[in-house]
Amino acid sequence: MSRHDLTLLTDFYELTMMQGYYEKGQNETVIFDVFFRQNPSNGGYSICAGLEQVIEYVKNLNFTYEDVDYLRSLGMFSEDFLHYLSGFHFTGDIYAIPEGTVIFPKEPVIKVIAPIMEAQLVETAILNIINHQCLIATKASRVVFAAGGDGIMEFGLRRAQGPDAGLYGARAAIIGGCIGTSNVLAGQRFNVPVLGTHAHSWIMSFPDEYTAFKTYAQLYPDNCILLVDTYDTLKSGVPNAIRVFEEMRAAGISMKKYGIRLDSGDLAYLSKQARAMLDEAGFTDAVISASNDLDEYLLHDLKIQQAAITSWGVGTNLITSKDCPSFGGVYKLAAIQDESGQFVPKIKISENTEKITNPGNKTIYRIYDKTTGKVRADLICFVDETYDTDQDLLLFDPIETWKKTRLPGGTYTMREILVPVFRNGECVYQSPSVMEIAEYCKQEKKTLWEETKRLFYPHQVYVDLSESLYEVKKSLLDQMDMD
Amino acid sequence: MSRHDLTLLTDFYELTMMQGYYEKGQNETVIFDVFFRQNPSNGGYSICAGLEQVIEYVKNLNFTYEDVDYLRSLGMFSEDFLHYLSGFHFTGDIYAIPEGTVIFPKEPVIKVIAPIMEAQLVETAILNIINHQCLIATKASRVVFAAGGDGIMEFGLRRAQGPDAGLYGARAAIIGGCIGTSNVLAGQRFNVPVLGTHAHSWIMSFPDEYTAFKTYAQLYPDNCILLVDTYDTLKSGVPNAIRVFEEMRAAGISMKKYGIRLDSGDLAYLSKQARAMLDEAGFTDAVISASNDLDEYLLHDLKIQQAAITSWGVGTNLITSKDCPSFGGVYKLAAIQDESGQFVPKIKISENTEKITNPGNKTIYRIYDKTTGKVRADLICFVDETYDTDQDLLLFDPIETWKKTRLPGGTYTMREILVPVFRNGECVYQSPSVMEIAEYCKQEKKTLWEETKRLFYPHQVYVDLSESLYEVKKSLLDQMDMD
Repeated sequence: MSRHDLTLLTDFYELTMMQGYYEKGQNETVIFDVFFRQNPSNGGYSICAGLEQVIEYVKNLNFTYEDVDYLRSLGMFSEDFLHYLSGFHFTGDIYAIPEGTVIFPKEPVIKVIAPIMEAQLVETAILNIINHQCLIATKASRVVFAAGGDGIMEFGLRRAQGPDAGLYGARAAIIGGCIGTSNVLAGQRFNVPVLGTHAHSWIMSFPDEYTAFKTYAQLYPDNCILLVDTYDTLKSGVPNAIRVFEEMRAAGISMKKYGIRLDSGDLAYLSKQARAMLDEAGFTDAVISASNDLDEYLLHDLKIQQAAITSWGVGTNLITSKDCPSFGGVYKLAAIQDESGQFVPKIKISENTEKITNPGNKTIYRIYDKTTGKVRADLICFVDETYDTDQDLLLFDPIETWKKTRLPGGTYTMREILVPVFRNGECVYQSPSVMEIAEYCKQEKKTLWEETKRLFYPHQVYVDLSESLYEVKKSLLDQMDMD
Repeated sequence: MSRHDLTLLTDFYELTMMQGYYEKGQNETVIFDVFFRQNPSNGGYSICAGLEQVIEYVKNLNFTYEDVDYLRSLGMFSEDFLHYLSGFHFTGDIYAIPEGTVIFPKEPVIKVIAPIMEAQLVETAILNIINHQCLIATKASRVVFAAGGDGIMEFGLRRAQGPDAGLYGARAAIIGGCIGTSNVLAGQRFNVPVLGTHAHSWIMSFPDEYTAFKTYAQLYPDNCILLVDTYDTLKSGVPNAIRVFEEMRAAGISMKKYGIRLDSGDLAYLSKQARAMLDEAGFTDAVISASNDLDEYLLHDLKIQQAAITSWGVGTNLITSKDCPSFGGVYKLAAIQDESGQFVPKIKISENTEKITNPGNKTIYRIYDKTTGKVRADLICFVDETYDTDQDLLLFDPIETWKKTRLPGGTYTMREILVPVFRNGECVYQSPSVMEIAEYCKQEKKTLWEETKRLFYPHQVYVDLSESLYEVKKSLLDQMDMD
């Protein structure tokens, strides 16, 4: 399970295509866009995550002797090409939307500008990393939204799809708004809070529940959340917890953070009963936390039913994004440089209008309402287009083009959200810490209307094309023989 | 992304509990069982996978100076305990069902017998690894079943939940019956076949589709599967492919494996049309392969509609097990050794009868019909029970106990399926190669009735308890104060 780089973490066809380009001496610079077509779980937005791992991956790209030997053993690659691979490193440019940014379908999250052989190789790993972390960050953000201010802890490691899914899933969950994770390795690697107290096995390893609780409270008076459902929550668990809290109080031991955790049964009913029992005994500051197959939908309903829970542990459904376990990011050719150095826009058509790609060398401006600071729309345009926010801005739907909005000059602001990450193979971007990204993400979500954050049938933010981009796209489509 | 061991890949509460046991001087030997409660996707069986990675993990368990420093920085652990951790290694026994074996709910897939501090630490990573690989191996097996003999290729790396999910997911997919993977790293690490030809970007980087196909065919005449849906499958893609195949034939170049790949549109319709066009041109041995959001259900339907496809690439839905993205394996305390060295059975009760655990030090016998070689049932019993297959064997449902079957002596055979993997911390098991495991798994599936392999509402195989185990469980339940 040790591994120094992920160079071979690629689809085999990337290598057969690379050799094809190599044999043909065809290595023109191209542009590939990473984008996705739909927010997970029918949401109104997604959260960008995974860039730091993409950067590490690209920096460490190299074929070791062992890798080259392995590829030789497959009997499909020429010695010339293998020799080329042994000297391979990435020499291109990469632009990306910073982690923690709110993102929307169809806009390039990452743009790779590189010789085609290099741009092709990196496709699979970039998609793998971005698809995974965007998915979990987005799911976490939904769960956090449903909790309406309560803390969400990420508890899913044991059900994650392998070690990395646990590790980077925890990272993405923190970016999306979780206050901590049970995953110790994630705590160490990303300097994020780790949380947790004990399991049923702790209780079962003692002669009785009371002794197990008492022992735990004496060991950890400052973080003592007792799991009360091993035998019977209301008849045994909560009374035993109260007895222990009373004894600690009587002994003059102050407990910083203490309370109970519910892990089965009806959480609305049990939490209200437990709250009454704790309050009755004078433990009004005792925390009631809950876990047990939670997701944003159940959490939303439990909040409506006024469950007396203020701290939530979310496992399986968050770490696998259970109702939507893949993000669907794709990597599509947008332009090829010709001999004169111009990028010739390329388009991938489809019977499905939604699946037609946006051609050319593009960037994205986010447009905010000047008064509220809320996002009005995203505008995808060519990199050489310029805008003057003192002028009116005409936005129109790129499919239903009669849907138009004119923003009067002076009423909006614009921010370019794609930033340079690699230039000529050199990394020019310094990733913030995960907690900094999480804080930035929190601010980012404040730029969304509540209608966009809603769990069910949210308002979709407009992602429009500039007039120039729209015209180029239209003329490329017209050139195609579609009959 | 480099990492030497997964020691800190654990839930924080494992460490707080460990310190609890350490402080109390409580380190009796215990038994934990890993088991699951339901087959994924409402199936009739699951496939065991992941043991090799569990073994690696246990062998490499150790807290480095860096790990200890990190834990110290959390301010919750004593120097004594940290010192204990710095010398930690696993000293216990582990029993497991070999990879590739068909498994059923409620039976221990792994059994850990170790001092409680050690047994507790390894919980999370073992569950993480087993839950992931069993899930994907089982999903792959379902997809392979639906394909009724056609080859299934695993193509999901770009949509997997992180690098490990791609790597170990590919491993598990091969165990479950896939004939190859697109994942080159998996090919290198596990010596399994890697497959793939080219993407849409290959076609788009040439002036036209014909030139792209021709170039590819000249480069790879022995493995030339042309992707025909970049522009228009039947009007452009298939005719251009046929033109190239004709030119190769005219030039006297024999092509070993050649054909087309469909990646969009209605696969039943397009494949039948393409088959007719290829046959008409004399290319009756041209392969038609397909990809595009396939899963076992769509594959099943496409087979019913006689789609002319004999080779399938399955991505997202397999590598994430989309309709059921977690396996649900749990790790439950089954027994604690007393001073006399006896294991005292422990039980975890629940309001839900199905969730009550099986106590004690157990093993599993698989019972086969002597004539057909098919599985009759699994029998969970205590390790010290013995059976004589010349005698009648009474099986009964552990919940609906009036449901009984008597197998006459001489008509059945028994095989113990839990085998020793670690003894006193030493690994005593040699993992077979992945391809050996895949072959074993193929044989294993032949021991299942077709009714159990069915995708929808399959027949569930009986997992029964021995009479002794049933009696001990019943008396433990009776002792509990359930009122």
